[in-house]
Amino acid sequence: MIEIIRPTFVIDKEVCLQNIERMAEKAKAHNMRFRPHFKTHQSAKVGEWFRHFGVDAITVSSVGMAEYFAMNGWDDITIAFSLNILEMAHINRLAASVKLNVLLENKEAAEVLAAKAQNPIGVYLKIDTGYNRTGIPLSRTGIIDAILDTIAANKKITFKGFLTHTGHTYAARSTNEIFSRQFDALLKMKSLKAAYLKRFPKVEISMGDTPSASICSNFSGVDEFRPGNFVFYDLMQQNLGACSMKDIAVRMVCPVVAKHVSRNEVVIYGGAVHFAKDSILNTDGKPLFGRIIIEKDGEKQLLDTNNYLSRLSQEHGIIKTTPANFREINVGDLIEVIPVHSCLTANLAKTYLTTDGEEIPTANTYL
Amino acid sequence: MIEIIRPTFVIDKEVCLQNIERMAEKAKAHNMRFRPHFKTHQSAKVGEWFRHFGVDAITVSSVGMAEYFAMNGWDDITIAFSLNILEMAHINRLAASVKLNVLLENKEAAEVLAAKAQNPIGVYLKIDTGYNRTGIPLSRTGIIDAILDTIAANKKITFKGFLTHTGHTYAARSTNEIFSRQFDALLKMKSLKAAYLKRFPKVEISMGDTPSASICSNFSGVDEFRPGNFVFYDLMQQNLGACSMKDIAVRMVCPVVAKHVSRNEVVIYGGAVHFAKDSILNTDGKPLFGRIIIEKDGEKQLLDTNNYLSRLSQEHGIIKTTPANFREINVGDLIEVIPVHSCLTANLAKTYLTTDGEEIPTANTYL
Repeated sequence: MIEIIRPTFVIDKEVCLQNIERMAEKAKAHNMRFRPHFKTHQSAKVGEWFRHFGVDAITVSSVGMAEYFAMNGWDDITIAFSLNILEMAHINRLAASVKLNVLLENKEAAEVLAAKAQNPIGVYLKIDTGYNRTGIPLSRTGIIDAILDTIAANKKITFKGFLTHTGHTYAARSTNEIFSRQFDALLKMKSLKAAYLKRFPKVEISMGDTPSASICSNFSGVDEFRPGNFVFYDLMQQNLGACSMKDIAVRMVCPVVAKHVSRNEVVIYGGAVHFAKDSILNTDGKPLFGRIIIEKDGEKQLLDTNNYLSRLSQEHGIIKTTPANFREINVGDLIEVIPVHSCLTANLAKTYLTTDGEEIPTANTYL
Repeated sequence: MIEIIRPTFVIDKEVCLQNIERMAEKAKAHNMRFRPHFKTHQSAKVGEWFRHFGVDAITVSSVGMAEYFAMNGWDDITIAFSLNILEMAHINRLAASVKLNVLLENKEAAEVLAAKAQNPIGVYLKIDTGYNRTGIPLSRTGIIDAILDTIAANKKITFKGFLTHTGHTYAARSTNEIFSRQFDALLKMKSLKAAYLKRFPKVEISMGDTPSASICSNFSGVDEFRPGNFVFYDLMQQNLGACSMKDIAVRMVCPVVAKHVSRNEVVIYGGAVHFAKDSILNTDGKPLFGRIIIEKDGEKQLLDTNNYLSRLSQEHGIIKTTPANFREINVGDLIEVIPVHSCLTANLAKTYLTTDGEEIPTANTYL
C-alpha cells in the first residue's frame, strides 16, 4: 500500500465503476451511442475501465488530449471544442491514424478545414441551445448552411450532425430547471435534425452534460450521449441534485499541519494548486471548497456543513470546524476532502491513487 | 521562433529581470538577506536569472519544490510551509545535501522534528501577524517557549528566528492600508526579536509579501526578505497598487476560436486549466479574469476594461469586447491576456516561452 504523505487524489474504484456502468446502461436503454467525455479523468487507466462496459468511442476537449488517448489505443475520438485552426497540422496527423471528429461553428474555421484536411475527418456543428458560451444560435441557419456548403468542397470531410453542450444545467436552481433546460435543448436539436434529415439522412444529435444525463429520462431522437463528470461526480453535482453523496468517487486526502483553537480552524497541506478554486455556497452563505470526512472511533464519518474547507491559498487549506470536531483532529492526521469540482481538481493531479492501492498516471505528464 | 498554436505562458524576460534587479537592490539597500520565494515561477531556468543578482538562498512552499530546486543546484533553501511531519524522511534526505530551514508553529510538529532530525536543520517559528491563516499568534509566547525547549533536545536543530507572511496586505483596500499592515507586522516582529535577543543573539526576522515588499520602505530590524510574486507581478498586484501595468512580465497567449456578434463576445482556447480561476472586480462590478492586448495597425494595444476575460470554463475563455474592438479580432488570431494571479497561472504551465523565443521547462514536469 502506498503511504500518503502529500495531498493525494484518491479514487474509490468501486463507486467509479458503478457510475460508469449506470451511465452506459442508460445510453443503451435509450439507444444512444455512449461517447463519454474523458476531460474529467484524463487518464488512460481510467479510460480502460470504460472498455469493460463496451465503450469504444470517446470525447475529449483538446487536440493534446486526443493525441494522448490515441497513443493509448483509442481510435474513435471527438474533439468537443470548436476547431482551433492553428492546430490543423496536429489534426491532420491525428486523422491519419484514428477516426476523428471535430467541431465547427463558423465559416472561417470551416474554410481552413476545407482547404487543409488531408485525411478523413468527421464534422459536428456546435449548436448553442441556451448556454450562451459558444456555438451557433439555433436561429442562424444561414451560418449552418454556409458551413455545410464550405466543407462540401473537401471530399475528406463528412458532416455527422449537430452537437450541443447544455451547460446551463449547471446554473439550474432546482432539478426541475435541469429537466426543463434539457427538454428545451432537446426540442431545439430535434427541430434542427428534422430540418436537415432529408439532405443528410444520417444526421445525428449529440448531447450530454452530466446534470441532465444523470437525472433526465427523455432522450428521444438523441443519437449520441457525451457526459463526462459523472465518472467521479463531485459536490457541485450533488448540490444540483445530479448525484447523491455516495456516488462521489473521489477525495483529496490531505495532511493536517496546524490547528488554531481560537478560530476552531485546522490547516491542511492542500491548497489551490491541489483543489483548484471552484466553490459552492455553504449553508452559512460563505464559499465552501470541500466537505470533510474524518475517522471517529475507527469509522469514517462525513461531517456536517459546519465543518468545511473554507479558504484556499497556493498550498494551504483552512478547514472550519465545530469545537467538538476540532478536538478529534490532530497534527499529522490525514483528512479526506470531497472536492467541489472534480474535473479541475483531477486536472491538477499528476497521479491518482485508487482504493485498491494502485497508483495511476494521468495525461498531466503528457499534456 | 516557436510558433504558438495553443494557450502559452509567455514571459517578457527583460521586464522580469528588471523586477528581480529592483527587488534585489531594495534588499541590499536595507541590509536584508534576499531569499526570494520561488513558488511563483517554479522554474530552474528563471531561478538562474536570480543568480545574476547575487541570489544564493531561496524560499519554496513545499518539500517537493525544495527537492526540485536542490536537484537544480540550490543549496540554501527555506520551506516556508509549516512542517508536515509525514514528510520527515524526505526532509532528512534533503537536509543531508543542502542547508535546509523549516517552519514550526506547534509543539506536535516540534516533537517529531526533535525526535527524527538526522541532519542539520534550521528552524524558523511561523508567527501570525494578522493574516489569520496560520502561525503562532503573537500573544502565545507559551507556545514559542515550548517549541524552543522541545527542539533544544536535538543538537542537529538550530533556531534561526521568527518568520511571518503578511498576506493580509492582499486584502488591503488602499496602498495606505498596505503600509499600515506592514508597519503593524513589523512592530510585532521587532518586539518578538527584542524579547528573544538575549537568549538568541542571532535571532532573525524574516518577512516579505510582494505588496508590502514592493511599496514599503521601512524594514528596520528585518534580516530577511522573501517576496515571490514580484518576479512576474499580475493584475492583482497592479490592482493593489503594488506595481504598474508595465511591470507585469507575463501574458497568456491564446488562439481565438469563435466570435459571437450578438453578445460582442470572443471565444478563446484558454480556460480554467490554463488561467486558474482567481478574479478581481472589474469596473462594471463583474469578475475579471484577465485584461486583453490586441494588435492594432501593427502595434500592441492594451484594451480598456470594457474588454476583458469575463468567464472561464475548463478549456474555454469568453472575452467581452466593445463592438469596435470586436471587429478587430478574427478567428485564428492570437490574443494576449494579462493574468489576474500569475502564481496559479504559472503553476498550470508545463513550459514557459520567453520573448527571446526560448522554451523553459518548469517544475511541473517534476513535481
